[in-house]
Amino acid sequence: MSQFGKSDFPVENVRRYLEPGPIVLVSSAWRGKTNIMTMGWHTVMEFTPSLVGCMISAGNHSFEMIRRSRECVINLPTTALTDTVVGIGNTTGAEIDKFAEFGLTADPAEKVGAPLIRECHANFECILRDDALVGSYNFFIFEVVKAHVAEQPAHPQTLHYTGDGVFMLSGRIISKRELFRPEML
Amino acid sequence: MSQFGKSDFPVENVRRYLEPGPIVLVSSAWRGKTNIMTMGWHTVMEFTPSLVGCMISAGNHSFEMIRRSRECVINLPTTALTDTVVGIGNTTGAEIDKFAEFGLTADPAEKVGAPLIRECHANFECILRDDALVGSYNFFIFEVVKAHVAEQPAHPQTLHYTGDGVFMLSGRIISKRELFRPEML
Repeated sequence: MSQFGKSDFPVENVRRYLEPGPIVLVSSAWRGKTNIMTMGWHTVMEFTPSLVGCMISAGNHSFEMIRRSRECVINLPTTALTDTVVGIGNTTGAEIDKFAEFGLTADPAEKVGAPLIRECHANFECILRDDALVGSYNFFIFEVVKAHVAEQPAHPQTLHYTGDGVFMLSGRIISKRELFRPEML
Repeated sequence: MSQFGKSDFPVENVRRYLEPGPIVLVSSAWRGKTNIMTMGWHTVMEFTPSLVGCMISAGNHSFEMIRRSRECVINLPTTALTDTVVGIGNTTGAEIDKFAEFGLTADPAEKVGAPLIRECHANFECILRDDALVGSYNFFIFEVVKAHVAEQPAHPQTLHYTGDGVFMLSGRIISKRELFRPEML
């Protein structure tokens, strides 16, 4: 398996990667151009269908690309990409090609036109499911229709933003399974 | 300052604590009873007004209490409360008084009827701002109207849920301020 070798992953389990609150990279495509933005404001909303709610400010170049194509890929970067994540968040796709600028590889997705970012730990292909709050809040509800996740490491080190240029890195993993009722797991 | 001594905190900055994706405890009050639930599915939605979107499943005893009172408090627990967080998530307020059961202290809030949980690092008083997606998705949009945050530690160790009884604990803090454009901070 290559460095970025990934397996299919059950879409109903994406909470495992998104619920802890990592910064993600959102890739999109529209009329022959691609773009990438950083996003920290998102939440899992349902297991099945696999729904993720995302704030994409209208000021982002990606906003119209995603609103028009009604698709995107949510990519999970690890700390190996820290400076790239910051760079992507501090530039605009209106001026540069972010894949080229940051040396990232655009792999074809299976179910959407937006590209996967090969160098990320996981890639979640998304279709816009509900745009009811896009006009009022810039809030997009996506359905994850296909998920690709690297098999190792089991718990990648992720970036969690706190504002002011400061990130919290994911730390120790602990299990409290013995305290859960079986139906709550 | 006591162990839980807290200061007023600017509501427009709550992203510092919520954006990294911690498990939170949501306290509520309705008709003379209080309750607490654990919540992992939430996202910051705006700085000003300070908006937080939250998934509160209709199966929770807290759901109707919050929907009717249109208020709650989002409390930020640290790893000092790990077993309490799990216990609260695995019991129901329909059967027990969670403040009593888990030895937590209900302090009066300033702007809402729901109680603050004294033992938490931060308490965000919330008013239901928009219930447009409550019926369809159990998605509540709250406005944080008052925030109380302990002055120390600057970066409390928080719990981040990944499913299956497994938590990621917040880890190292790094600054990348030097890579940000000033207007992006």
